[in-house]
Amino acid sequence: MAKVRVENFTITVDGFSAGVNQRMDAPFGDGVDGLHDWMFAAQDDKAAGRGGIDASYIGRYDDTTGATIMGRNMFGPFRGPWEDESWQGWWGDNPPYHRDTFVLTHHPRPTLPMKGGTTFYFTDDPIEQVLERALTAANGKDVTIGGGAATVQQYLRAGLIDELHVVVSPILAGAGERLFDNLADGLGNYRVDSVVSSPKATHVQIVRR
Amino acid sequence: MAKVRVENFTITVDGFSAGVNQRMDAPFGDGVDGLHDWMFAAQDDKAAGRGGIDASYIGRYDDTTGATIMGRNMFGPFRGPWEDESWQGWWGDNPPYHRDTFVLTHHPRPTLPMKGGTTFYFTDDPIEQVLERALTAANGKDVTIGGGAATVQQYLRAGLIDELHVVVSPILAGAGERLFDNLADGLGNYRVDSVVSSPKATHVQIVRR
Repeated sequence: MAKVRVENFTITVDGFSAGVNQRMDAPFGDGVDGLHDWMFAAQDDKAAGRGGIDASYIGRYDDTTGATIMGRNMFGPFRGPWEDESWQGWWGDNPPYHRDTFVLTHHPRPTLPMKGGTTFYFTDDPIEQVLERALTAANGKDVTIGGGAATVQQYLRAGLIDELHVVVSPILAGAGERLFDNLADGLGNYRVDSVVSSPKATHVQIVRR
Repeated sequence: MAKVRVENFTITVDGFSAGVNQRMDAPFGDGVDGLHDWMFAAQDDKAAGRGGIDASYIGRYDDTTGATIMGRNMFGPFRGPWEDESWQGWWGDNPPYHRDTFVLTHHPRPTLPMKGGTTFYFTDDPIEQVLERALTAANGKDVTIGGGAATVQQYLRAGLIDELHVVVSPILAGAGERLFDNLADGLGNYRVDSVVSSPKATHVQIVRR
């Protein structure tokens, strides 16, 4: 049974997944330097075959994820109508998704096929319909909700997420976008399944009750 | 040099130190069942000489703390003027402080000496002056800021806290009082010094930069 998962979603100790003032040279905004250091180190560890807690977490789902959904702010720093459509995301011409990736936006634009198997679809359909499309595209594999916080919150409020892997980095942002906010009773049917710390990160696994 | 510390301050994974609707039979409000389970188990472990991460944290400061400051909501469930002054706190006639304890309140009442060395002083003085009184009372030992969240936030905004030991319990509250809120740039001069997880709790030590 395909699952809907949030994975490697990283927040500060004070709860922020992004700082204020996201822009071209600061995709995650101000005050969150080092937020993803654990992940880069884990990728190095994994590539070098060194293992470790962090590496084991990032590698868990490589073969089981078939499609991704993200918010438009995760795709780029722009707001409102596209000035042009030359922006192809933060990740260069070969994004790390390698699968169909749906971008939620009030300003759809043509489908954007990239190298390496990633295809960006831009849609203003209701989130439930986008999830249905993503599940179809995933063809039996899981769908990941990539972020940012507002997108995860939308799917949590709708009760559509099966598992969240939240990672707490040992930094303080002071301000920004909180993951655990605007949820109404969106967490009422979830529980913490495990908490594991490495020297660089604390991994919190949240599942349905 | 005496320090001003927050210790054993426990929050949920989603950041709350208390749920909504604090009342007589729910000192921490709704939705936070199990918030302090780690602490009770650690106290048992310590009493039995079993040690462990959690026990080592709660025992760190037994001999070095000389006075405590808390907000009125930590002292009791009442708001506004005291209907009477028979309430003596949540802790029975021998509170676990065993030292001078200052309660911040807009509704002062007479000093309340208890068994075991705890004396509650009720004051509406500015927080800086209360801290001076507490440091004098501590006579060279540290002062702890007990809570709740609003009291810790006041002292953080004023830059008066030297160290915070925050404990994350593996539960989700969904709503309540957040520790890391209303801080303006109150965290700007602090950094995370360490993060350590036991099976029951994640200990985050925050210190001045």
